[in-house]
Amino acid sequence: MKTDPHAKLPIPTIAWQPDHAGGSRPGCIRILDQTRLPGSASFLEIRDLPPLWQAIKDLQVRGAPAIGIAAAMGVVLAIQKNTADTNGLIEAACQAADYLGTARPTAVNLFWALTRMRQTAQFAANLEPAAFKDRLLAEALRIYNEDMEMCRAIGRHGASLLQDGQTVLTHCNAGGLATSGYGTALAPIYIAREQGKTIRVYADETRPLLQGARLTAWELMQAGVEVTLICDNMAAQVMREGRIDAVMVGADRIAANGDTANKIGTYGLALLARAHQVPFYVLAPTSTFDLDTPDGASIPIEERGAEEITRGFGAPTAPEGVKVYAPAFDVTPAALITGIISERGVIKHPFPQPLLAFSA
Amino acid sequence: MKTDPHAKLPIPTIAWQPDHAGGSRPGCIRILDQTRLPGSASFLEIRDLPPLWQAIKDLQVRGAPAIGIAAAMGVVLAIQKNTADTNGLIEAACQAADYLGTARPTAVNLFWALTRMRQTAQFAANLEPAAFKDRLLAEALRIYNEDMEMCRAIGRHGASLLQDGQTVLTHCNAGGLATSGYGTALAPIYIAREQGKTIRVYADETRPLLQGARLTAWELMQAGVEVTLICDNMAAQVMREGRIDAVMVGADRIAANGDTANKIGTYGLALLARAHQVPFYVLAPTSTFDLDTPDGASIPIEERGAEEITRGFGAPTAPEGVKVYAPAFDVTPAALITGIISERGVIKHPFPQPLLAFSA
Repeated sequence: MKTDPHAKLPIPTIAWQPDHAGGSRPGCIRILDQTRLPGSASFLEIRDLPPLWQAIKDLQVRGAPAIGIAAAMGVVLAIQKNTADTNGLIEAACQAADYLGTARPTAVNLFWALTRMRQTAQFAANLEPAAFKDRLLAEALRIYNEDMEMCRAIGRHGASLLQDGQTVLTHCNAGGLATSGYGTALAPIYIAREQGKTIRVYADETRPLLQGARLTAWELMQAGVEVTLICDNMAAQVMREGRIDAVMVGADRIAANGDTANKIGTYGLALLARAHQVPFYVLAPTSTFDLDTPDGASIPIEERGAEEITRGFGAPTAPEGVKVYAPAFDVTPAALITGIISERGVIKHPFPQPLLAFSA
Repeated sequence: MKTDPHAKLPIPTIAWQPDHAGGSRPGCIRILDQTRLPGSASFLEIRDLPPLWQAIKDLQVRGAPAIGIAAAMGVVLAIQKNTADTNGLIEAACQAADYLGTARPTAVNLFWALTRMRQTAQFAANLEPAAFKDRLLAEALRIYNEDMEMCRAIGRHGASLLQDGQTVLTHCNAGGLATSGYGTALAPIYIAREQGKTIRVYADETRPLLQGARLTAWELMQAGVEVTLICDNMAAQVMREGRIDAVMVGADRIAANGDTANKIGTYGLALLARAHQVPFYVLAPTSTFDLDTPDGASIPIEERGAEEITRGFGAPTAPEGVKVYAPAFDVTPAALITGIISERGVIKHPFPQPLLAFSA
């Protein structure tokens, strides 16, 4: 690591922190505690596995890429002070991976990162203990850096669509807080600024869990980007007043035909963008493309608990026992999406079939 | 008053309550304390002017028609135990009207109702004190009954558009809580039920002040109407799933060409309804028609304070100092409105010019 990987990083969501200047171990994981946002930006310095497991479990670190990075670094934590021989270290690394894998049973990136660390350990069986430890730390940092490069690539492609002085509307948080630090939907904002462009942002607060108000507004303010918070139901008026040049959102899953599942409200936003002739972009890594799903009709829509709507702010805001419908996601039809932006480039509508055949 | 005016009333927002069985005075004003909804349905029995002034000021009673009714009844409170001669009663009534008029300086219905009570007092100068008191009570009850009849007429016209088993989506609270008891946008629901039809309702929670969650959901549940609460950003998905047969909303002002100002989010909802081919109806009395305003471009959009969005639930939900844009209303263009329903009937798009020339 010749250069500081955090030098240009807008959001210090997660970092490996060497304990001694210039040294690479023993170190700790520095995590921005997202459960205390936006009230307080406090950092956890995690040196042991149980508090890391708890931090993942309790969403102190959240977002699939960020969780994967944290878990990979956790495997390093597990072995760095261990004085066993290499076989003992392999065993300790695999045990740590098994343990961390139980923190969020449905987070795909968590398993992916842990599997990669296990395989790295197996392939490094011929190394001396010190070199073995270096190898695992290097792999964890590689996972981190790959994510950052992927986000930066999405950001570069997205920034090419934005001109100095333009304004982007976003929904939920597909920002640096969910990744190594640049995010997906917000990466073009940060990259555009590195390029000397000033891009302003409107952030939907994003009911029911208010990720837009709590996280997106916070991280953009931290990064010095001008952000204006609105309620979700104000987006149409804001577009009508000509305040928005583009909508940029993330994605939870993109079907083979381009239909995109994302946080509830995204579909409505796409309809409003179309009505106001505002381009609507989806930004996500190609790992989000699901070619086994032909179209949006095949994507199941998860329903969430009523209390997120009726008591989402601590106090009850609706009558006791009221019936609630709370879809967590919706599907935006490909026809409403102006372009899909991945680390490979920009795919403009009408989309090539299948999506993954595309390469920048 | 031969029949109980509350017999079929879905929501007991406000009522004149005679203190002695069969008698008409002295009485008190019974008000549903809306500041305690939805947590608690408690009633205030108001017998003096200062607590009534405070109840209007503090939004314990809210909604332009309900405030007007409360103020008219307040003038009755001011004289009912007064032993002065008729000239003294006229003076007391006018003083009470002046005082109550200071509770909400911008509520047009408040001034309208108080002016009507002042004029009634002047015209009754030749009556004996007892008859004078009866005359003013009768006028206050007339204001109340006229509002109820107007709401019921809107309800009848609106109900003619609904078939048994259909589902209506509404936004904000244009319900019984804001009027004598039937509301405007919700009146068709109540009237349809009196006609033996079962109509279900989806209620937008209506950020930032959550009138849909706190008030609309509450009053429909009280009335035994099946209501499902959603976040504003779920409306598009709910329509897409085919759950909505019609959208019905109230209006703050309707311009001469049919452009309609209403609670923020209404315009976006109209766009979503159009995209899903769901009819979109505005329900409001003809007193809401403003023929001096040619179209929506002339209607100023009030902006509200940031704290309604950033601290709307007691605790902060956004970063300290975040920039906020908070338009309180938006304007739905006439072209997106399927019909305007007033006490005079249903005006279908394209609207006759001017609107008020229309009569059912």
